Amino acid sequence: MIPKPDSAVPAVAGEGRPLSADKGKRRIEWVFQSMPVLQSVRKQFIRAQPFAGLRFGVSLPASAETANLLIALRDAGGSPALCPAGAHQQQDVLASLTRDYGIPAFAPDALSEVAAWQPHLVFDDGGRLTQFLHQHRPDLLDNCLGGTEETTEGVVRLKALSRQDGLRFPVIAMYDAMTRHLFDNRYGTGQTTIDSLLRTTNILVAGSTVVVAGYGWCGRGIAARARGMGANVIVSEIDPIKALEALMDGYRVMSMSDAAALGDVFITVTGNKAVIHREHFEKMKNGAILCNSGHFNVEIDVDGLTRAAASRKQTPADVEGLGGVEEYVLRDGRRIYMLSEGQSGVMSAQPPASVLDLSFANQVLCAEFLVRNHSAQERLKNKVYAVPEQLDRQVARWKLDAMGIKIDRLSVEQEMYLSSCSGGAE
Amino acid sequence: MIPKPDSAVPAVAGEGRPLSADKGKRRIEWVFQSMPVLQSVRKQFIRAQPFAGLRFGVSLPASAETANLLIALRDAGGSPALCPAGAHQQQDVLASLTRDYGIPAFAPDALSEVAAWQPHLVFDDGGRLTQFLHQHRPDLLDNCLGGTEETTEGVVRLKALSRQDGLRFPVIAMYDAMTRHLFDNRYGTGQTTIDSLLRTTNILVAGSTVVVAGYGWCGRGIAARARGMGANVIVSEIDPIKALEALMDGYRVMSMSDAAALGDVFITVTGNKAVIHREHFEKMKNGAILCNSGHFNVEIDVDGLTRAAASRKQTPADVEGLGGVEEYVLRDGRRIYMLSEGQSGVMSAQPPASVLDLSFANQVLCAEFLVRNHSAQERLKNKVYAVPEQLDRQVARWKLDAMGIKIDRLSVEQEMYLSSCSGGAE
Amino acid sequence: MIPKPDSAVPAVAGEGRPLSADKGKRRIEWVFQSMPVLQSVRKQFIRAQPFAGLRFGVSLPASAETANLLIALRDAGGSPALCPAGAHQQQDVLASLTRDYGIPAFAPDALSEVAAWQPHLVFDDGGRLTQFLHQHRPDLLDNCLGGTEETTEGVVRLKALSRQDGLRFPVIAMYDAMTRHLFDNRYGTGQTTIDSLLRTTNILVAGSTVVVAGYGWCGRGIAARARGMGANVIVSEIDPIKALEALMDGYRVMSMSDAAALGDVFITVTGNKAVIHREHFEKMKNGAILCNSGHFNVEIDVDGLTRAAASRKQTPADVEGLGGVEEYVLRDGRRIYMLSEGQSGVMSAQPPASVLDLSFANQVLCAEFLVRNHSAQERLKNKVYAVPEQLDRQVARWKLDAMGIKIDRLSVEQEMYLSSCSGGAE
Amino acid sequence: MIPKPDSAVPAVAGEGRPLSADKGKRRIEWVFQSMPVLQSVRKQFIRAQPFAGLRFGVSLPASAETANLLIALRDAGGSPALCPAGAHQQQDVLASLTRDYGIPAFAPDALSEVAAWQPHLVFDDGGRLTQFLHQHRPDLLDNCLGGTEETTEGVVRLKALSRQDGLRFPVIAMYDAMTRHLFDNRYGTGQTTIDSLLRTTNILVAGSTVVVAGYGWCGRGIAARARGMGANVIVSEIDPIKALEALMDGYRVMSMSDAAALGDVFITVTGNKAVIHREHFEKMKNGAILCNSGHFNVEIDVDGLTRAAASRKQTPADVEGLGGVEEYVLRDGRRIYMLSEGQSGVMSAQPPASVLDLSFANQVLCAEFLVRNHSAQERLKNKVYAVPEQLDRQVARWKLDAMGIKIDRLSVEQEMYLSSCSGGAE
Repeated sequence: MIPKPDSAVPAVAGEGRPLSADKGKRRIEWVFQSMPVLQSVRKQFIRAQPFAGLRFGVSLPASAETANLLIALRDAGGSPALCPAGAHQQQDVLASLTRDYGIPAFAPDALSEVAAWQPHLVFDDGGRLTQFLHQHRPDLLDNCLGGTEETTEGVVRLKALSRQDGLRFPVIAMYDAMTRHLFDNRYGTGQTTIDSLLRTTNILVAGSTVVVAGYGWCGRGIAARARGMGANVIVSEIDPIKALEALMDGYRVMSMSDAAALGDVFITVTGNKAVIHREHFEKMKNGAILCNSGHFNVEIDVDGLTRAAASRKQTPADVEGLGGVEEYVLRDGRRIYMLSEGQSGVMSAQPPASVLDLSFANQVLCAEFLVRNHSAQERLKNKVYAVPEQLDRQVARWKLDAMGIKIDRLSVEQEMYLSSCSGGAE
Repeated sequence: MIPKPDSAVPAVAGEGRPLSADKGKRRIEWVFQSMPVLQSVRKQFIRAQPFAGLRFGVSLPASAETANLLIALRDAGGSPALCPAGAHQQQDVLASLTRDYGIPAFAPDALSEVAAWQPHLVFDDGGRLTQFLHQHRPDLLDNCLGGTEETTEGVVRLKALSRQDGLRFPVIAMYDAMTRHLFDNRYGTGQTTIDSLLRTTNILVAGSTVVVAGYGWCGRGIAARARGMGANVIVSEIDPIKALEALMDGYRVMSMSDAAALGDVFITVTGNKAVIHREHFEKMKNGAILCNSGHFNVEIDVDGLTRAAASRKQTPADVEGLGGVEEYVLRDGRRIYMLSEGQSGVMSAQPPASVLDLSFANQVLCAEFLVRNHSAQERLKNKVYAVPEQLDRQVARWKLDAMGIKIDRLSVEQEMYLSSCSGGAE
Repeated sequence: MIPKPDSAVPAVAGEGRPLSADKGKRRIEWVFQSMPVLQSVRKQFIRAQPFAGLRFGVSLPASAETANLLIALRDAGGSPALCPAGAHQQQDVLASLTRDYGIPAFAPDALSEVAAWQPHLVFDDGGRLTQFLHQHRPDLLDNCLGGTEETTEGVVRLKALSRQDGLRFPVIAMYDAMTRHLFDNRYGTGQTTIDSLLRTTNILVAGSTVVVAGYGWCGRGIAARARGMGANVIVSEIDPIKALEALMDGYRVMSMSDAAALGDVFITVTGNKAVIHREHFEKMKNGAILCNSGHFNVEIDVDGLTRAAASRKQTPADVEGLGGVEEYVLRDGRRIYMLSEGQSGVMSAQPPASVLDLSFANQVLCAEFLVRNHSAQERLKNKVYAVPEQLDRQVARWKLDAMGIKIDRLSVEQEMYLSSCSGGAE
Repeated sequence: MIPKPDSAVPAVAGEGRPLSADKGKRRIEWVFQSMPVLQSVRKQFIRAQPFAGLRFGVSLPASAETANLLIALRDAGGSPALCPAGAHQQQDVLASLTRDYGIPAFAPDALSEVAAWQPHLVFDDGGRLTQFLHQHRPDLLDNCLGGTEETTEGVVRLKALSRQDGLRFPVIAMYDAMTRHLFDNRYGTGQTTIDSLLRTTNILVAGSTVVVAGYGWCGRGIAARARGMGANVIVSEIDPIKALEALMDGYRVMSMSDAAALGDVFITVTGNKAVIHREHFEKMKNGAILCNSGHFNVEIDVDGLTRAAASRKQTPADVEGLGGVEEYVLRDGRRIYMLSEGQSGVMSAQPPASVLDLSFANQVLCAEFLVRNHSAQERLKNKVYAVPEQLDRQVARWKLDAMGIKIDRLSVEQEMYLSSCSGGAE
């Protein structure tokens, strides 16, 4: 039997915690106004009720932004239940979600509980809930219309499953959306990385030399922002086309071996391992700062640095702007500073709510697309799909609306012209 | 019977024109040193002789850059013949090509003559030679291993042919190469447009408001360069995702109707027609300057402007920096200036040779790919193909080499890491 | 009788607070390495001992940076005593100063105590200590060789005193130093303002419209950094020359009345009052953010905003990135956010230590200049002086040295050329 | 006897040259509309007639812009006569000036003739006319109310004269005006230098390394524009404060010795001699381009380069974008390219008319100031003066008006606030 939303026993929001729930409510309301695009979708779906009778199993970080996503699903007729993913949970938000919005929240990683919710749709972050359903609750899979997955890591897992014909419902990879590349990676990570650097070290960026390893979307954003703050930026890349692009964008481009001796700050966003390693530590200037903004914590060889260091200590957390920095003193006396132990997930600055706004609005649209498609004649296959371009474009359009920006639309004549010839000069 | 290269009677290089040929030779030699990537390919192929015994039918603009391309083909064992395409031919280059390099050059648009050359490979610019062969010399098609096409317009035609199963050899669309997007469109057109604006009007860009219509690769480049010269840039776009990108890049974004009253300079790069039309002329400031950098001459409605104008005159060509500008005086006395009669092909500034260097080097690699592939077991189909990614990457690598830039290569461990998981953070 | 340094009873570092002093010591040591220029001066003066036998009365904020300044004075032979100025004192630093460095620190604003120290040189911040000595301890003035003053506000007061022939020793206005303009105002305030904005609001700067009121050194820096983070920047100015400069730098320039309706963020750095007032609040967008980075808290008419508001509340301080923001709900429902109650002094981000490094190094050089000059034949008058250009230049040179930057020096021939003709193209 | 304007026999505008004069007239009229600020002054002075009865001796380059200046003087009641200065004269403009505007123009450098015009006011460019009057026509000096001087070089000469008490009328140095620094030097020279580089070499600036010697106003402008076109910029400076500023602006800073091996393009704007000399040529990359944008032709040691070169030849002038470039082949085979023989005066791109607009409007205001002051009780001394700040500000205000920009004015309250305290945060 499926637990009813209103009878669900939330794991975290025990009684006697009204204060916490109050605080959570204020946070949810506060973030609400920074997510205008999600609200646009919500408003439209309040009338249409596309999710009437459908349960959502949601495995996302418990934050005020996620709360607003869940509320939007609820207001569109759905019955979402949250199983918080990841290490950092906002307890007060969970408390308010249950108390004030009637949305059940289970304990972190309580995958079997959220599975018992018998979801029709799955919102996943890392592919763990989807995998759990396939491995432990195959009986529920016929019930599932589809899912979305946030991360590239999760997508890799689900694609592997799909190649073995094991995937039992279609999944949309949120990561590939243009609105995500543009916002989350280029502009979001670009700003957040600089923000984290300032909060933790309070160095003057102007006049410093910043080495950015990797010139993908994130790297482009970080390089642009570092230059925008007055840094002289060096890019290292293994892909010659991206390297050439960085060069044409006015940056210096060189191997990490050559850059190692020049940088004041090193930021890695390559998706690869040991991009900065022992050979590089040996060449670095006294006082060099290392920071990983990539997806995983392997980009900087922290173990190698630890072995190379004579000592290692946390910097005074109470010194203004020096939380989360560790000082490694090398045998020759040079000091190297590492932010957040080389992990990017726990960097001090959070992405702006307006960035998640686009991702989450897109996610609700994708869910509606999965539902609508399920009842269509020609159904999606049980594969991993990219975000349909028209949804991506719709999200961008609502974002422009929310910012009060008007753009042109094609005239009939122009549409005819474009379809008759090549058109689309780049 | 195929005319032998050395017996070919060149249409343009008559006797008694030694002076012109001398000048052409100097131009060819001069440009040589600005095309290091083409020279890298040439050097490699001098040894390999991949084109031994193969004839090339080349329909490209007759320029010193094209001459260097032909010489590279010749030095790689090939026998190229040139049928100059387009309106602007450098006669002295043609004279030198024949006299000094033994490369036959026919009259402009002498397609039947270049067809009689019985080419094994076709280098086309607009698809006209390929179409001619299919329509008028089908007997020669079995002989053809493949071709390349420069323009989007040509690609559209050849794709249409391909869809009707009419295409008889594989064609590679040069336009899609990343090295082309990056160089030719973003950086090349970006610079050339500003250059043309300065040469023809000599306005102070700093402090002016520049409206860029279209935020594709060209538009991004132009907007970046206009800002780089101190302009305040407004972007108009019909695609909401590109519009959002422009906004995030710090530009103002609005409809052309709203931008019309604000701009000092208007530059169109949309690939669409009538992007600026009567409604907009009516709102423009006195002294507004119009410039089309898109592929065709339809982006600005010149006819509409002519009808709206009370008079129209060429500006004094002898005034420093005022060649190729026409002044339209509207009925209410406002003056509007149009560059190059709304055409982009005849703008005064030529693209830098270093931009064509990449395109042409890529083209030689593509020809070698077509030849090699032809004798492979699994042959290409008679379709339009994108430039193979590894060729594109090779060109970028040679360009970096030519600029003295060293980049990292993946270690074995890193390759394993990337193939084992998702990798490739963006 | 003058209290001896080692017998001074510090007001703040009571017994039983070893932990606090330990922490202060770590902070002082930590900041030490971010002040290489101050260390260059210190090293030089350790040998020269220019301040042997001289007492310094120092009225500066109690921070780890100030501590390093005092230590440098001590190591140069001087005997400094600190009377902490301003509201925000680092108690642990004060504790360590006394315990570990033998430098007496009095209670905040204990001007009579620091006067009793009978200083030969005064380091002032706001002119209060200098005024106190003139008004209450004229007996000590003959003893004074000179002083330095940090702020424009203090300089105004001392110049007024000087005009009435009341100033009894020469004062150097630190504010006018080029190294201060460049660092503290343009680059320091530029970065710190953006940093504060991010820490308190966590908005995505890219794509937002930022209005900067005032285009002096600070305004130039803030505008450049806001643009560097992806904002579209509008400048308002009352000086037509600065307004023109902003325009030429590519910004939009308009009156605050016109800008009010367009901005997402408003930053004031004019030095004037009520730059943003009721008329402007009425036009602002819902969600507009107000931030004063000027010297005083009068730039934004907070009282006017309070009167215009129906309600006012602190935003949830625990929401990531929302400390120190107040929400004003206007009668028509629009919300306006005010950072730090319109005060610039308490903004959350501190200036980087490397910025204060230049100021404090300059200050030590100025003190030495005052001492040396005092025994020179032609003494300084009892006026307010600018920082001698050669000292400013020396500080810049040491900073370059500390960053490992080498620059050219004039050859003898070049010196002769410059002195023989105009030279110095700008 | 003074030659009457209408009876003056112009040296250049002989009969039978109507065509030339027609062309000149069109040029004058064309430029008219690009000089709105000069027209603002002119309109105001048409009513006021401040120059009624006053003769102007004008020694400026003969251009359409100068013609508009002379017409403005005439319309304000004055009687100007032109003695063209410098090598490059626009003959057709001279022809039209005389025929169509009744303004006499003498032969280039005919100083005695323009002296015979018995000027009340002198507009000089290089100080030669002023010197001529002092040396050869001291009898006319009592007649002179004052003068203006354009160049720093001229100012140096006149200041030398002034120091020896030899100057017999007050002179205003136009060079020091803020509107001149900002426009002519930073934005004007910044753009014109890039423009000249593109016209003569047609290199792709993006991805190149540009070395700028000198970080004064011109250098700042050139560096900003080179970066804006995608270059990686290196600055060399001898002044440590300017060097530090360049560093904080995100450029690399180093000695020319170190930069020599790195640059693709070298631009000198130092005002000093031999900034680039033999030692540097020896380190340069093959293909390096040298360009002087400073005031004189001594910045690059052309003689040294000639001696170092094995051969030297003009590049093919007909090759697109290669006029005015000389190729020096060094003994080791490296080629170095020199623009305009190291001279800045003959670079191919002219400054935009809108730049001269400000200078010339300022000049007319200064003339009126000299006249008004002459009859004031407290007259100017016979010295070299800076441009009065209020005139500079007035010019900026008119420029803003011409661009349709509105700015705020101080309220009474704000004025009081500013005068009561320090105000003016920077």
